[in-house]
Amino acid sequence: MRAAVLREGRIVLRDDVPEPWPEAGQVLVRVRACGICGSDLHFAKHGARLLELGRQMKGMPATTAGEVDLGRDVYMGHELSAEVVDAGPDTSTFPPGTLVTSIPVLAGATGIQPVAYSNTVLGGYGEQMLLSAPLLVEVPNGLDPCHAALTEPMAVGLHAVNRSGIAAGEGAVVLGCGPIGIAVIAALHLRGAEPIVAADLSAGRRALAARMGATTVVDPAREGALDAYAGAAHGAPVVFEAVGVPGMIDEAMRDAAPQTRIVVVGVCMAPDRITPFFGIAKELAVQFVLGYDPVEFTTSLRHLAEGEIDVQPLVTGRVGLDGVGSAFEELADPGSHCKIVVLP
Amino acid sequence: MRAAVLREGRIVLRDDVPEPWPEAGQVLVRVRACGICGSDLHFAKHGARLLELGRQMKGMPATTAGEVDLGRDVYMGHELSAEVVDAGPDTSTFPPGTLVTSIPVLAGATGIQPVAYSNTVLGGYGEQMLLSAPLLVEVPNGLDPCHAALTEPMAVGLHAVNRSGIAAGEGAVVLGCGPIGIAVIAALHLRGAEPIVAADLSAGRRALAARMGATTVVDPAREGALDAYAGAAHGAPVVFEAVGVPGMIDEAMRDAAPQTRIVVVGVCMAPDRITPFFGIAKELAVQFVLGYDPVEFTTSLRHLAEGEIDVQPLVTGRVGLDGVGSAFEELADPGSHCKIVVLP
Repeated sequence: MRAAVLREGRIVLRDDVPEPWPEAGQVLVRVRACGICGSDLHFAKHGARLLELGRQMKGMPATTAGEVDLGRDVYMGHELSAEVVDAGPDTSTFPPGTLVTSIPVLAGATGIQPVAYSNTVLGGYGEQMLLSAPLLVEVPNGLDPCHAALTEPMAVGLHAVNRSGIAAGEGAVVLGCGPIGIAVIAALHLRGAEPIVAADLSAGRRALAARMGATTVVDPAREGALDAYAGAAHGAPVVFEAVGVPGMIDEAMRDAAPQTRIVVVGVCMAPDRITPFFGIAKELAVQFVLGYDPVEFTTSLRHLAEGEIDVQPLVTGRVGLDGVGSAFEELADPGSHCKIVVLP
Repeated sequence: MRAAVLREGRIVLRDDVPEPWPEAGQVLVRVRACGICGSDLHFAKHGARLLELGRQMKGMPATTAGEVDLGRDVYMGHELSAEVVDAGPDTSTFPPGTLVTSIPVLAGATGIQPVAYSNTVLGGYGEQMLLSAPLLVEVPNGLDPCHAALTEPMAVGLHAVNRSGIAAGEGAVVLGCGPIGIAVIAALHLRGAEPIVAADLSAGRRALAARMGATTVVDPAREGALDAYAGAAHGAPVVFEAVGVPGMIDEAMRDAAPQTRIVVVGVCMAPDRITPFFGIAKELAVQFVLGYDPVEFTTSLRHLAEGEIDVQPLVTGRVGLDGVGSAFEELADPGSHCKIVVLP
């Protein structure tokens, strides 16, 4: 079968990937849509550094996944919707043809492995893959497979908002209106946060932010988002850093009001410089967040399926498997792009 | 009168400081004891940088204090106990001779000013000074003036523990056993936190940490504090960073377990480097803390006066006003020193 894989830092389309075969508890699915995630771009560019940081880092639970070998092909793609094809032995699942989605985790005889960056576990940038029967969620209400695939990134935004502890009527500032910033804005809007001041250098992304619920959008080249917020007569906002480049956390620490909560949801792979004095003088809290839990995932799907969040404007590009490589290149300088979805 | 002042980065003993005169609402006191605070050492060494960072920083409430002019003498000393001498017009206070302490804030006709680093507001490194009548707290139970002066730094530790949200039975790791680390350990011990793993390069400071409530002490040159903690069969600890030098926050982020709360109470004046990836991968929370509130201050005094915390072992040196300069030099390389108290 065909699958786009990461090989020596570049996306390569293969047509000789062996078709997967479901074990007990697994389901073979045909991928309908898979979003290209910023973390896939990060991994393609900074994979070696990321693996090295992972080795330095202590305190992580042991996994059975083993380490990714960058010298071999790497499968990626974890924002997906798919149709059920077949189930493993002694495994009950939805009827063939059912549109499903899943948190990107595969349970098997050798343990639990993430569906993310793997030399062995297929991802969503291919025609077929395996998912775990107990984790499958049926996509309801005839939701477009392309939109259902965005359940995952939207869950990331929901999780960040949940972890922030923000309440209805509280204000927020969102730095960066890429897919994660947009997901945060949508979740904030649904939560009743107000005002929501969003900043992005791209006019197209600012327009998208306004459409998804930002009450004010600013161009940070002209005005700091926290300065723009300070002009409003409201309490200190919760700040969401969704840019993920060095310097953003320090800038937020410098400009925030005392006691501000800064939620870091943008994934900055490089080392970063901060000024602890800013944090101390204002008693700031910096909360790093990642991912979501299964309840947040299904909640996110419900938001999309019931029309509470319309992700249609987020899809700014659609490509086939042969377009994954050029999509990665295009997203490296995103311009007005938000999400490119792969339709295998 | 005599007072030790900061002049061009060095401590100078003056004998020509005009005696202060209390306005309405103010009380003239004779300083009995004043602890030398690490932040005084920081200010003496990095004052210009600190003021520059203060200018860069947004979001701070406007004060009437004005900026400190490093070209003029600077009064310091804010960990103090003192005897009431006289009160301003229409001001009632404790009888002359009463031993008191106070949060280091002076209210006057021109507004509220911190008793910390000032060209005009006298501090505790002098014979006499002014305090605010409504903020005076009587020192009870015949507590030694030298110990009563430590109400303030112990309140800093109490505040950090309060802000951490740690509960009895939860574990803690304290990085650094200088005065603030020790104050954190004492407050943790009183709170019932357990185990309390404390780390310091100095054997003397480790011994002091054990005496104040640390259940395990480690030499970080031999073993990481978080590694030592991981050996114990407990939940993830709350980590208190009380060293305040570059690299400590990143090391804690690298070594901490997922979901760890890192409370930064050490004041690092230099820029610092962190690896956001560590924070994101483990969803860490970094809470910067500063100071205390008035209730924490009086609670801290009660802990000392009722013998719940014995600060006697913290006092590792006593000097007169003529010894402040050499004490600053000695504390720049603290060795086994904890707190040097000035007895004017």
